[in-house]
Amino acid sequence: MASPAASRVAIFILRVLTFILLLISLIVLTTSATTGEVGIDQTIRIHFNDINAYRYMLAAIVIGFAYSLLQLAFSTCHLISGNRLISGDGGILVDFYSEKVISYLLATGAAAGFGVTKDMKDYFEANNWFFGTFYEKVYASASMLFLAFVCSAVLSVLYSYQLPKKV
Amino acid sequence: MASPAASRVAIFILRVLTFILLLISLIVLTTSATTGEVGIDQTIRIHFNDINAYRYMLAAIVIGFAYSLLQLAFSTCHLISGNRLISGDGGILVDFYSEKVISYLLATGAAAGFGVTKDMKDYFEANNWFFGTFYEKVYASASMLFLAFVCSAVLSVLYSYQLPKKV
Repeated sequence: MASPAASRVAIFILRVLTFILLLISLIVLTTSATTGEVGIDQTIRIHFNDINAYRYMLAAIVIGFAYSLLQLAFSTCHLISGNRLISGDGGILVDFYSEKVISYLLATGAAAGFGVTKDMKDYFEANNWFFGTFYEKVYASASMLFLAFVCSAVLSVLYSYQLPKKV
Repeated sequence: MASPAASRVAIFILRVLTFILLLISLIVLTTSATTGEVGIDQTIRIHFNDINAYRYMLAAIVIGFAYSLLQLAFSTCHLISGNRLISGDGGILVDFYSEKVISYLLATGAAAGFGVTKDMKDYFEANNWFFGTFYEKVYASASMLFLAFVCSAVLSVLYSYQLPKKV
């Protein structure tokens, strides 16, 4: 069952967008390390790796990125040849379930990132500890991850409409 | 378009489960306030309301709970009479999109809760601050919220199969 050309193009554009957003998110998060002031003449270096929630965020970005790259390759084939790699209902089911799982993964990654950053920033600022642009970088990365989740959620909706009716 | 009886019963059971899980999650989170030791003879009282991520978690639980209660009422009508409140494709579309949004909301609420609790617990324990069962209570609440999300995600998949094919 091949989907109409318009849907194939929409899927391809959303795939490219997700891929670019996750790439930016990955670069921003991994380069967010900053040296901060925690007292008079005292500095410590903060790295995203020090915080569990950011490690989960990184895992979500990396898994999403790898999946996105793979699906982008399949989408390109689909767009050019008009045929899916896995033909019939099987391919649609794989796309539907994998996109659903990935969209939840990206959403939870962004939520963990935003949640921890907000509370950590408030706590550190109340203690007069300053970490410069660290939070802004993590916020930027989480925002890109959130936008990638939105693309993934739209893709998930598009795939839902292609599902065979069984229930 | 009425769905078969088996699907109606499955939806009803998942609705009841989501409702119960969210109710437990709400009770556990709102009663999690604990007095903790932060130094020799020094204690402070910690409340879920003090942490932004937990307030978001509460919002997710309350919205999910209200939605769940409403849908439970509709599901009961659907189960007894066999007719949806909004008949035709409109009702299915409303159920599909609302369930999708609610499932993302519950997932992000649980992620924010788990993320902040893990990092806060590590940080406080490294400083020898002890808050007794506070974390366990929040973990329990986040776990219930996560299980409610799983029910909601399954409901979302069930509704996806009922969608009219348009793409």
